[in-house]
Amino acid sequence: MSKDRSKKPEIVITMGDPAGIGPEIIIKTLAKEEIYRSCRPIICGSRVFLEKAMRICGLENRIHWDRFCVEEPRIADFDEKKIELGKASADGGKAAYRYIEKATELCMSKTVAAMATAPINKEALKMADIPYIGHTEILAGLTGTQDPLTMFYVHGLKVFFLTRHIAFSQICSMCTEERIYDYIVRCTEAMERMDIGNREKPFAVAALNPHGGDGGLFGSEEKNNIFPAVLRARENGINVVGPIPADSVFHMALKGDFSGVLSLYHDQGHIATKTLDFEKTIAVTCGLPFLRTSVDHGTAFDIAGKGTASEISMMEAVNVAARLIL
Amino acid sequence: MSKDRSKKPEIVITMGDPAGIGPEIIIKTLAKEEIYRSCRPIICGSRVFLEKAMRICGLENRIHWDRFCVEEPRIADFDEKKIELGKASADGGKAAYRYIEKATELCMSKTVAAMATAPINKEALKMADIPYIGHTEILAGLTGTQDPLTMFYVHGLKVFFLTRHIAFSQICSMCTEERIYDYIVRCTEAMERMDIGNREKPFAVAALNPHGGDGGLFGSEEKNNIFPAVLRARENGINVVGPIPADSVFHMALKGDFSGVLSLYHDQGHIATKTLDFEKTIAVTCGLPFLRTSVDHGTAFDIAGKGTASEISMMEAVNVAARLIL
Repeated sequence: MSKDRSKKPEIVITMGDPAGIGPEIIIKTLAKEEIYRSCRPIICGSRVFLEKAMRICGLENRIHWDRFCVEEPRIADFDEKKIELGKASADGGKAAYRYIEKATELCMSKTVAAMATAPINKEALKMADIPYIGHTEILAGLTGTQDPLTMFYVHGLKVFFLTRHIAFSQICSMCTEERIYDYIVRCTEAMERMDIGNREKPFAVAALNPHGGDGGLFGSEEKNNIFPAVLRARENGINVVGPIPADSVFHMALKGDFSGVLSLYHDQGHIATKTLDFEKTIAVTCGLPFLRTSVDHGTAFDIAGKGTASEISMMEAVNVAARLIL
Repeated sequence: MSKDRSKKPEIVITMGDPAGIGPEIIIKTLAKEEIYRSCRPIICGSRVFLEKAMRICGLENRIHWDRFCVEEPRIADFDEKKIELGKASADGGKAAYRYIEKATELCMSKTVAAMATAPINKEALKMADIPYIGHTEILAGLTGTQDPLTMFYVHGLKVFFLTRHIAFSQICSMCTEERIYDYIVRCTEAMERMDIGNREKPFAVAALNPHGGDGGLFGSEEKNNIFPAVLRARENGINVVGPIPADSVFHMALKGDFSGVLSLYHDQGHIATKTLDFEKTIAVTCGLPFLRTSVDHGTAFDIAGKGTASEISMMEAVNVAARLIL
């Protein structure tokens, strides 16, 4: 990715399902001066729903339509009028999909630098017969990417996951030398390709057992699986260290000691990032041909149209996208 | 414990092993105005080593000896002159033990309100033939307490541990309904007895599996063990909730939703507290006849006598002790 540091990057923001809180959190984001300091926003979505959200949020005097663009989708095989706030529908699901499709075209043609996505609804996608279950799958499909990586980002801390949605009892058996080695390679390559890591600092692999097993006193995965994987990666020229005890590794990464952290299981990385700052924890999809950030919440149909949804996560998704590509 | 909110509490601070950084971090703490706003400090330790630390840290003009007391131990079966900075010795181990013994007497006789401890050295304790391996064991022995509980405290967040120094692979089998129920009872009783919890807020039990198992999709410990334990405790009148997904429970507790959190394994609670604020995470021993806080580091013999040790953890241990008993 070529980086021109002299001008503000263009970030495409997808509206997500128009029936959800997407339009509101985007409007609230566009009402903040801060956003224009970090990027030039391009919204892939519905102008009608944006205007509706503007009125709902009482932000008519704070939105300047010349400060951002709205791009409607190329293919509009859905009926906006049938989309009702707070309700899952085939039209809402189809619209959400078309916004992502359009945003992907803009990213692939390098018209924009990165993508930040508002939430979509799995049920609505299904009603619209979209053959994907979520954002990551749609983006992988549209770009022909195999197995993209999810990275969490908060306060500069970058966390990858060796395993995610599996039972706790299965974590140990998934921490094989092979898998850990493979993830060290993929994570460091992804950061390198996207130019988002600090190359001078090593990538760190978290330990599994308390105190990293304390020299084998409790648990042997560090000695038998993690360390050999780290050693092999180092022999292959990768700047990586570990295993680092899990109660220190995130603190050390926050201080700037590491370019990123490979957490071995869902909660290991989630507890660290979300306890640190729940609302500002952003998901970044790595491995795509472009950078994509995402809010860390759903469509929240129960509060859609009330104007009460918090824009903090959306703001942070846009700001992080702008920060990471610079 | 009776609470007199009209005057500042007296907190006894044990010096720990005089050969370690204990004297320095205590002197640096005593040089801070802040400490006298929260308590009246009483040091159980060596006046000679305090004076030495004062010169090492260059704080001669900042220490006012009339603002705190120094209590020397009742039994002095050690030779201070033989204690060398940075070296484990039988005399250092014996001295450290006698300071704790004296401090315990002061706490048991209600002369002081609580205890904050500087680090001791396991090797030195062994050289001194002290029949305990650490602080908690010494205090349990001196007070006749069975099985005290360790609680972590940081920024108002209180975290207990169902399991600690065991292999990760053994965690699942330790999360039995019986053990969880027993800990809910013990943790809530300890907070009640010490009057440190917010009685209006429920105590929370963390989940084990990601997303709390997502309704049984990955892992069944929530349904089979944790929830039944919580239910039984509620039926017995305990204000407790759970299982709460581990990536939310600490954030929610920090917001004030819960009186405390039972984490199921070492790293679950350690990652949360130490990522949040590594230096201000304080250990509190519950279940003793008095409140005791502790720094979260060791004697650091390698830097003892250099005047470089950080007093942040010692300051926080004293401040937290004062805050919790008020």
